Amino acid sequence: MKQVYLDNAATTALRPEVINRMTEVLANTYGNASSTHSFGRSAKALLEQCRKNIAIYFNVSASEIVFTSGGTEADNLALRSAVRDLGVTEIITSKIEHHAVLHTAEQLQDEYNIKISYVNLDGCGMIDYTHLEDLLKASDKAMVSLMHVNNEIGNVLDIQHVAKLCKENNALFHSDGVQSVGHFKLDLQTIPVDFLAASAHKFHGPKGVGFCFVRKESGLRPLIFGGEQERGHRAGTESIHNIVGMDEALKIAYDNLDAEKEQITSIKTYFINQLKKVIPSVSFNGGCEDTTKSTYTLVNVCLPLEPSKTPMLQFQLDLKGIACSKGSACQSGSSQQSHVLAEILDEEKLKYPSVRFSFSVFTTTEEIDYTINVLKDIFNA
Amino acid sequence: MKQVYLDNAATTALRPEVINRMTEVLANTYGNASSTHSFGRSAKALLEQCRKNIAIYFNVSASEIVFTSGGTEADNLALRSAVRDLGVTEIITSKIEHHAVLHTAEQLQDEYNIKISYVNLDGCGMIDYTHLEDLLKASDKAMVSLMHVNNEIGNVLDIQHVAKLCKENNALFHSDGVQSVGHFKLDLQTIPVDFLAASAHKFHGPKGVGFCFVRKESGLRPLIFGGEQERGHRAGTESIHNIVGMDEALKIAYDNLDAEKEQITSIKTYFINQLKKVIPSVSFNGGCEDTTKSTYTLVNVCLPLEPSKTPMLQFQLDLKGIACSKGSACQSGSSQQSHVLAEILDEEKLKYPSVRFSFSVFTTTEEIDYTINVLKDIFNA
Ligand SMILES: Cc1ncc(COP(=O)(O)O)c(C=O)c1O
Ligand SMILES: Cc1ncc(COP(=O)(O)O)c(C=O)c1O
Repeated sequence: MKQVYLDNAATTALRPEVINRMTEVLANTYGNASSTHSFGRSAKALLEQCRKNIAIYFNVSASEIVFTSGGTEADNLALRSAVRDLGVTEIITSKIEHHAVLHTAEQLQDEYNIKISYVNLDGCGMIDYTHLEDLLKASDKAMVSLMHVNNEIGNVLDIQHVAKLCKENNALFHSDGVQSVGHFKLDLQTIPVDFLAASAHKFHGPKGVGFCFVRKESGLRPLIFGGEQERGHRAGTESIHNIVGMDEALKIAYDNLDAEKEQITSIKTYFINQLKKVIPSVSFNGGCEDTTKSTYTLVNVCLPLEPSKTPMLQFQLDLKGIACSKGSACQSGSSQQSHVLAEILDEEKLKYPSVRFSFSVFTTTEEIDYTINVLKDIFNA
Repeated sequence: MKQVYLDNAATTALRPEVINRMTEVLANTYGNASSTHSFGRSAKALLEQCRKNIAIYFNVSASEIVFTSGGTEADNLALRSAVRDLGVTEIITSKIEHHAVLHTAEQLQDEYNIKISYVNLDGCGMIDYTHLEDLLKASDKAMVSLMHVNNEIGNVLDIQHVAKLCKENNALFHSDGVQSVGHFKLDLQTIPVDFLAASAHKFHGPKGVGFCFVRKESGLRPLIFGGEQERGHRAGTESIHNIVGMDEALKIAYDNLDAEKEQITSIKTYFINQLKKVIPSVSFNGGCEDTTKSTYTLVNVCLPLEPSKTPMLQFQLDLKGIACSKGSACQSGSSQQSHVLAEILDEEKLKYPSVRFSFSVFTTTEEIDYTINVLKDIFNA
């Protein structure tokens, strides 16, 4: 059966080079990086080389990269330590953040009775920077947690501006960069974030590994306690093969960024144009139609289907081998309403199904043609 | 150069079958297990199959297996949730537990002002069960955290007895099973532990994955918050290839347990006998000389070297390609004094170097002969 994978914001296929390097490490570098004998030293050398490589892409020092089991853990690490260890009494965030941030903040509110403030959004889900500034001015000791690229609607934050506002107001700034790392270049010397979360499986690396950028001398303490791995920031034997896979994936992503960005942008533009032709009443959620406001990797469309056709939409797409995401991103395809769309769409639009299509360098024009045709047939049936 | 790997308690080489299955998953099953389209469903099916397979070996239900990023995370999960969510006000443990337990308990003491009680040990590091019972009787709402197999000296806990004592005294029981899972069969229907931690890289699986057995209706809540993965017990996209690797490694371990146990036991016995021949003054730390008290996978020996030779011991072993562990296990080869040996050895013995040699099914008699010869030469030089 034909299979078209358009759910790259949920996860991506691994690059063959990544698999090759991982397999090699699994077979040959099995030492524990904490051991000082030769097996351990080989593992340690590889680990620290990966850390150095990754740091360079963000213009930071290797000691500021803390490897984690993924984006979720990285978000948890930054938020929890900020509240527990760094005196943060208020988290300023938005209602359209990922659950890794929202549920962690809520949990911290329960545990520490901190305040959570949600910054206003416009109709497109763009952050109201004036309101953010007001919140910052009114706050005592805050951490702002705002994602760089939204995983559902693709909106891109002015991360530079937010970082500046935070500095001016003496607040910490954590950004969930899970959808942006590997897709956007980030110079963290010019962008003064304190913490940035990333996850390898969003840029053709393995699942279950990510990192948290932790600004030097931040005072961050662990989420997971035990051994002295990761300079005491994160205990547990390091998943070297996963870290090497992440390193390789990030290298390929950044070394080819411009070309791949151009290629994927044209896929997205093509998708939008073709879809508008066959379903002129389609609308685009959030800022995703506007490439200056949103990432080039996804679109989130509201399909004004007749109510009778709605329940079968997902089934029909699936039947045609098209993998895309309805509802929330990390429970893609789940029939639950997305908390992001619930926040930004009006009632009229919430009646209709919305679907996220997300692209990668492996997506072909032919796959888009096929998908557009399927959507047309569903719409006109 | 000759390389002899005798540090299997620090980590193990992956079985080729494990690498093969992981590579296949990396290439072919890259869907996000939370996605409901066909790519996601394949991943989910694989994930749940692994969970079922693993559950069977412990005679528990699949829903009681929570996948984690390793043993350290599993320990942290159980301890933190016990204190935060389950009303535990005292952790009863021992001074020779792994740092994943000890440092987590200390952190929880800082955060929640709980009591930590350390059970007495005899000169071999065996738990004083009478004292444990006294502690339990005197406690209000306790969790006992005692490891099944000690990673440094190999002592085996009477886990059945401890579980019974805990039940009788209405205490929770967590056991760090990182050194025992894959090496000892555990029927958790007959052994009423509440939580058990395991880590794949200790039984020829990949690093960065493990699980926590969590008894049904325990009320445990997450360490890492976000999506609804792992039935809400552990957020974050699942590392399917790692989980599949763990499943494969556990299957091979348990399907061949009796034969491999016999083989490794004879390696250990041979090592002990040969070493006593060449260094009659050697002594064995903890209960490790006695196979009824200790695991068949390791010995921890105190070498009564002349003080002038001690500093070079590690270097010389390394030069000869022998990988073993001096000092504490997870910082194997580290020159820091082991907190375990510091607890159980007298001052006289602490003056001498102690080294842990740990074996696997890949260890050969010839490697033992080589190692014994090297030790003899160092001793007699
Ligand atoms: C007894 C024990 N507990 C916990 C751990 C930590 O597990 P992991 O390495 O998977 O974090 C180890 C080894 O590292 C161990 O030996
Ligand atoms: C924006 C965002 N943050 C966090 C996560 C969680 O990262 P991980 O899947 O590595 O746990 C995801 C995706 O799953 C995401 O899209």
